[in-house]
Amino acid sequence: MLAQRLIERKRDGGRIEPGEWRALSLAYAAGHVPDYQMAAFLMAAFLQGLDPGETSALTDAMLASGATLDLAHLRQPRIDKHSTGGVGDKVSLVLAPLVASLGVVVPMMSGRGLGHTGGTLDKLESIPGFRTDLSLAEARAQLERLGCALIGQTAEIAPTDRKLYALRDATATVESIPLIAASIMSKKLAEGLTGLVLDVKRGAGAFLPELERGLELAQAMIRLGADRGCPVVALLTAMDRPLGRACGNALEVEEAIAALKGEGPPDLLRVTYALGAEMLVLGGVTPTVDAAQPLMEQAITSGRAAEKLQAIIEAQGGNPGVVDDPAVLPQALACELYTAPRKGLVAGVEPRAVGRGIIALGGGRTHMEDLVDPTVGFVISAKPGDWVDAGEPLATIFARDAAGIDAGRAALRQAIRIADEVPAPLPLVSHRVSAAGVEPYAF
Amino acid sequence: MLAQRLIERKRDGGRIEPGEWRALSLAYAAGHVPDYQMAAFLMAAFLQGLDPGETSALTDAMLASGATLDLAHLRQPRIDKHSTGGVGDKVSLVLAPLVASLGVVVPMMSGRGLGHTGGTLDKLESIPGFRTDLSLAEARAQLERLGCALIGQTAEIAPTDRKLYALRDATATVESIPLIAASIMSKKLAEGLTGLVLDVKRGAGAFLPELERGLELAQAMIRLGADRGCPVVALLTAMDRPLGRACGNALEVEEAIAALKGEGPPDLLRVTYALGAEMLVLGGVTPTVDAAQPLMEQAITSGRAAEKLQAIIEAQGGNPGVVDDPAVLPQALACELYTAPRKGLVAGVEPRAVGRGIIALGGGRTHMEDLVDPTVGFVISAKPGDWVDAGEPLATIFARDAAGIDAGRAALRQAIRIADEVPAPLPLVSHRVSAAGVEPYAF
Repeated sequence: MLAQRLIERKRDGGRIEPGEWRALSLAYAAGHVPDYQMAAFLMAAFLQGLDPGETSALTDAMLASGATLDLAHLRQPRIDKHSTGGVGDKVSLVLAPLVASLGVVVPMMSGRGLGHTGGTLDKLESIPGFRTDLSLAEARAQLERLGCALIGQTAEIAPTDRKLYALRDATATVESIPLIAASIMSKKLAEGLTGLVLDVKRGAGAFLPELERGLELAQAMIRLGADRGCPVVALLTAMDRPLGRACGNALEVEEAIAALKGEGPPDLLRVTYALGAEMLVLGGVTPTVDAAQPLMEQAITSGRAAEKLQAIIEAQGGNPGVVDDPAVLPQALACELYTAPRKGLVAGVEPRAVGRGIIALGGGRTHMEDLVDPTVGFVISAKPGDWVDAGEPLATIFARDAAGIDAGRAALRQAIRIADEVPAPLPLVSHRVSAAGVEPYAF
Repeated sequence: MLAQRLIERKRDGGRIEPGEWRALSLAYAAGHVPDYQMAAFLMAAFLQGLDPGETSALTDAMLASGATLDLAHLRQPRIDKHSTGGVGDKVSLVLAPLVASLGVVVPMMSGRGLGHTGGTLDKLESIPGFRTDLSLAEARAQLERLGCALIGQTAEIAPTDRKLYALRDATATVESIPLIAASIMSKKLAEGLTGLVLDVKRGAGAFLPELERGLELAQAMIRLGADRGCPVVALLTAMDRPLGRACGNALEVEEAIAALKGEGPPDLLRVTYALGAEMLVLGGVTPTVDAAQPLMEQAITSGRAAEKLQAIIEAQGGNPGVVDDPAVLPQALACELYTAPRKGLVAGVEPRAVGRGIIALGGGRTHMEDLVDPTVGFVISAKPGDWVDAGEPLATIFARDAAGIDAGRAALRQAIRIADEVPAPLPLVSHRVSAAGVEPYAF
């Protein structure tokens, strides 16, 4: 009877009290509330919304449904980064070892790719032997020793969120700001963080394309963090084109390693440094964002950042040789250049078309249970605004076979528009949001 | 994937096309769309609404999911009545044999009581031996022979509606005008009717208390009927107090039989005549509502209406002796008068409190699987506006034991308010709605 009353109240725009969120979460986790009642509740919540107090209570209820990574005994700051997801977004692979090499503990819990966006776990698993399924005890030991672990959401963490997320995915109730915020924060808070940096993507390839909605999500998460002693800072970054050049799991690992050696594409480095600076300031390593930049550059030129990645890979069962020799990664059987069909300006590189292309090549998922081929994808050198001649190479397609090459070519034809005029691309980092409010990004 | 796309579209206020309603209904009936997806869809439909075309397509899809009662070979008109439900509403028991005795075929499919409202099937089953679970073939044969059958919704009729209704009941998605209209009409159209009269209750005890909402439902059903060659006329009737005096299954059968013999309470007879006149006009038995009244009075005084009920009871396995001797009905073991606690005016008899009282006595349901005790209930002689002295009998409580008497007394204390002023009760029949529009009821 509880569930029915709560569905009815939320349906009519009413408020669910903290104790009721707790009871609902427990009853759902225990199987006493069936999926069909929860699905009706989620749709009512999607359409009627949750107020900040409700979002907060839901976060607590999901957090309390599982275990947490108790790291309070560590002296170091514990900071993670979360991205709302995009195409070519391999920032985590660069950022986590980079910031960890500067004395911040980074207990990074990531997800898998779904739809047009990739996932950090899939990328990591393209490294031969790499294990992402550490237990909480294993992750804790590794964090004590190396200051960084790159893991998936274990069954122990926020199990109600896990179950709810699968249900939301099947019932078209994913894109709700309060539900997203509570879902992310319940997991992040379980990591025992002292701070969190959010990378909120905006633009056509983002999960929430509109700036307004991105800001709303950032503010919801900042509120949730502030109430729990975990300051949150968000940067709004561009996802109207892929980030960096490589799009595809092993290809992105290769590019991330290059970036850790100072050879990354400038847009990837700029976003990584912007997020890293916020992590270092939140962690108290440097007093200002300005002071953070030289520290990070030094960690890269000295080789310490790349060494940190190597140590993490080794600790998690992967072949550490990949850092020195990317040929350790699985290689695509077929590859071909993609050239400009005409001369003109690159008017856009549409991230959703690129993401769909990766799925067509076998490197992405439409369902959670799909297997991904780590080798396939694109390296797209063309960026919006570039002037190109007909026949000039714009990208390389990596595929399993000739049919894959064809599919990749078709995807790039859709993705890369050549025109005579170019709309202004979004600034790479446009806004910074913190407890103090929203400001244009100034660095 | 179909379900997810449709949930998403309805969630965003979009329109589902007729072919999609059909596909969704089929897939749900076949178990290819799980309950949790349908629950999310229903909540989206509840909150975003359905336009008349969608309501129509849903009705057709549910109708097409099952068998129909093919009565097209009969020469007589085939008219049913449907009520939105109330307390003390035994109109069907009087109306069906009365109208059938005047040459209209009445294939009446009824439901069970749930919550504070009673159900015709439960009332009929208080007659020893009475079977309501006729097959379609049995019902058809009885309709050919007697012109009336009083049955439940068989498994053959609109199975998708049956499954959907159970899901709506569990997910707080019942009170949606388009979903209600489609559910009722899919079943009624399966009866092969040439016309339908709706009794839409209004007031505190009604399923949809507000007049506006009742009118909306009436108009939705009139539209659905008109599109399918089944004219629908609706009367808005009062449910701010119980109808008649008896409330409780066997007690209501006894009162209905008395009414068929011309000894019924005036409010019950008035509502029955009003609905019956519409059925006779729709059926072409009389040209006008005015002309119908003397015909019905004659059917009662001649004994033909009561004989029709007797024949129906006999045909459906019940003890026909009940028509001559109500003592054939099961009798409550305990009964007691309820008297006025003070002198004054009866300001109201609250139907929901009476309905809850019947549940407390064991004569109603909170869950579909509950068993009901046919013997218990109330006979409430007090009507709003009556002047009463302290200690004057207002009602009789029928219960299983002393504890039941106490529960009944408590319920009546809540239900029957004595005051010095009386708000005007609702007119028994206030509006008539047809394809021509809404008009104040004038007869």
